[in-house]
Amino acid sequence: MSYVRPEIAAMAGYVPGEQPQAGKFIKLNTNENPYPPSSKVVRAIQEAAETSLIRYPDPLGTPFRIRAAELWGVEPDWILCGNGSDDILTILTRAMVAERKLLRLPYPSYVLYKTLAEIQGARSQEVKFQADWTLADDFVAPDPDLGITYLPNPNSPSGTILSPDQVLELASKLEGPLLVDEAYADFADEHCVSLVKQNERIMVSRTLSKGYGLAGLRFGYLIAQPHLIAELQKVKDSYNCDALSIAAATAAIDDQIWLQDNVDRVRQTRERMFEELMQMGFSVQPSQANFLWCTHPDWSLKTLFEEMKAKRILIRYMLYPEWGEGLRITVGTDEQVDACLAVMRSLL
Amino acid sequence: MSYVRPEIAAMAGYVPGEQPQAGKFIKLNTNENPYPPSSKVVRAIQEAAETSLIRYPDPLGTPFRIRAAELWGVEPDWILCGNGSDDILTILTRAMVAERKLLRLPYPSYVLYKTLAEIQGARSQEVKFQADWTLADDFVAPDPDLGITYLPNPNSPSGTILSPDQVLELASKLEGPLLVDEAYADFADEHCVSLVKQNERIMVSRTLSKGYGLAGLRFGYLIAQPHLIAELQKVKDSYNCDALSIAAATAAIDDQIWLQDNVDRVRQTRERMFEELMQMGFSVQPSQANFLWCTHPDWSLKTLFEEMKAKRILIRYMLYPEWGEGLRITVGTDEQVDACLAVMRSLL
Repeated sequence: MSYVRPEIAAMAGYVPGEQPQAGKFIKLNTNENPYPPSSKVVRAIQEAAETSLIRYPDPLGTPFRIRAAELWGVEPDWILCGNGSDDILTILTRAMVAERKLLRLPYPSYVLYKTLAEIQGARSQEVKFQADWTLADDFVAPDPDLGITYLPNPNSPSGTILSPDQVLELASKLEGPLLVDEAYADFADEHCVSLVKQNERIMVSRTLSKGYGLAGLRFGYLIAQPHLIAELQKVKDSYNCDALSIAAATAAIDDQIWLQDNVDRVRQTRERMFEELMQMGFSVQPSQANFLWCTHPDWSLKTLFEEMKAKRILIRYMLYPEWGEGLRITVGTDEQVDACLAVMRSLL
Repeated sequence: MSYVRPEIAAMAGYVPGEQPQAGKFIKLNTNENPYPPSSKVVRAIQEAAETSLIRYPDPLGTPFRIRAAELWGVEPDWILCGNGSDDILTILTRAMVAERKLLRLPYPSYVLYKTLAEIQGARSQEVKFQADWTLADDFVAPDPDLGITYLPNPNSPSGTILSPDQVLELASKLEGPLLVDEAYADFADEHCVSLVKQNERIMVSRTLSKGYGLAGLRFGYLIAQPHLIAELQKVKDSYNCDALSIAAATAAIDDQIWLQDNVDRVRQTRERMFEELMQMGFSVQPSQANFLWCTHPDWSLKTLFEEMKAKRILIRYMLYPEWGEGLRITVGTDEQVDACLAVMRSLL
């Protein structure tokens, strides 16, 4: 017997992007940053390893909250630290979506939202993006069962973004809370953090996995009005962030110069990669994130993905039922991207 | 509006033991190990900080699972890694206890179990320990709503333990799964890991926060039969353990010589501390953990706790409604314990 709830037994389980632990791959499949993090982060970890292991960590990640609050012009009690932004999403889902209630998300977007609803024994409702990657009013339609609405912005796999004005308009029509998942916002022209002050229903999550190059660290955070943060703190594990990651994350957001340099580099490579993929005949979506979403009129994308994997270049093939398929390619270093494009050219 | 589920809004929230982030305290209130961890752990972190931050970590913590499996004589698929054993408890509760169903725990024990039931919208049932700290058959009574039963062993606050035979007998009467929470088992004479092979209903959780001196790291794990582990993996966050903690935890369990030395020291200090508290007139429970539970016939324990805090010695005062009160004092270094006992003597 498995002893688990029937909803869990029925689940397939979320499958994260491949993380080959052995062998040399050029890995452009899970949108990590290609550059090593700030040396200040590495130093902060090495110091914390000498001093901070035997005691339980600060339950709220106070040093990080103080820095993040300064960065965004809010008070520390507007910040909730998470063990990766997945932890933030888990906390929000557990806090706001009861069994059999509803979680809403756009389609196609981050599959994990749906998995979180399944774990919670809740229903999920996927609302299709329109052809121009905006969302119609069915995304904000009233529903008495609606617990929370998730909006990845920039979206994955498309790399598209809704402007703050568009997000504010959606939120003003919604009756419940809206989580704007800004995992990729470091690479975008605009973001929605300032909306949190304007509308208590808008919450913004961030991660240090992408722009800060710290996917291995697991650190994310939420910006929301303090009365919401106070409720969410009840749901998180007491010590959800460890002493090393708090020290590292604090050093990371303290180094905004590193972030800006890094983002500039990734964006430059992104634009070049965009042009070259277009020249190869791909249809490529202009991207506000650190990846590109593309399709090709003449080629089997699945075959191309597999042939590239055989040549040890990992990109992401994605098939969305009732919607379509495509390749999502992470923006790597110039070298990685050149290698990827060269292999691709040889296969087309 | 808070937008959270009514059960969350109604919760007080779990309050972990005080973690003063400033000032010099002798901190004997949250059962951390007083000694710095193995230098191999520190080195593993410092190396991982140089190499493992930009990529997502191994979702299953494979290197740790392999080592832990070797240690316990099982296969790696019997091990589930967690972001602290609190994460393991959260995963188990979410997987096995539906809304309005039942979670059972002994009383007095770890308050967090009850909080986990509250977050889940489930009910909890506390079954009182008998006077000799064993559990009668009401702890294993059938109930169609029972999702999981939690048994901390050694127990906190008492430091008492049930033998493997006693645990096996309880499990054989139970109809559902039994989690034996062995957070403190490194300090005990016996443990229940071998029972996991004998009865699929028995699962054992461990933490590296206590015996290994790594409370700041957040690493715990579960030992259970593989078909259960497979279900629980669906419920955990994809990357619940970060790259640094996986590297550190693997180095830690690899250094069993360090563990044994450390445990020996703590146990020696524990026995001396026991004797001295008895000489001061305390009634002290013999302990299998790294803390002592004591009461005093003549003194206000609350007052003693506060007076000691004023002198910057933090111990834990605990009041269990309908049961009683006591002081739970962590076994520190010999120096810390001497300072604690000296201040106590001066106050009595």
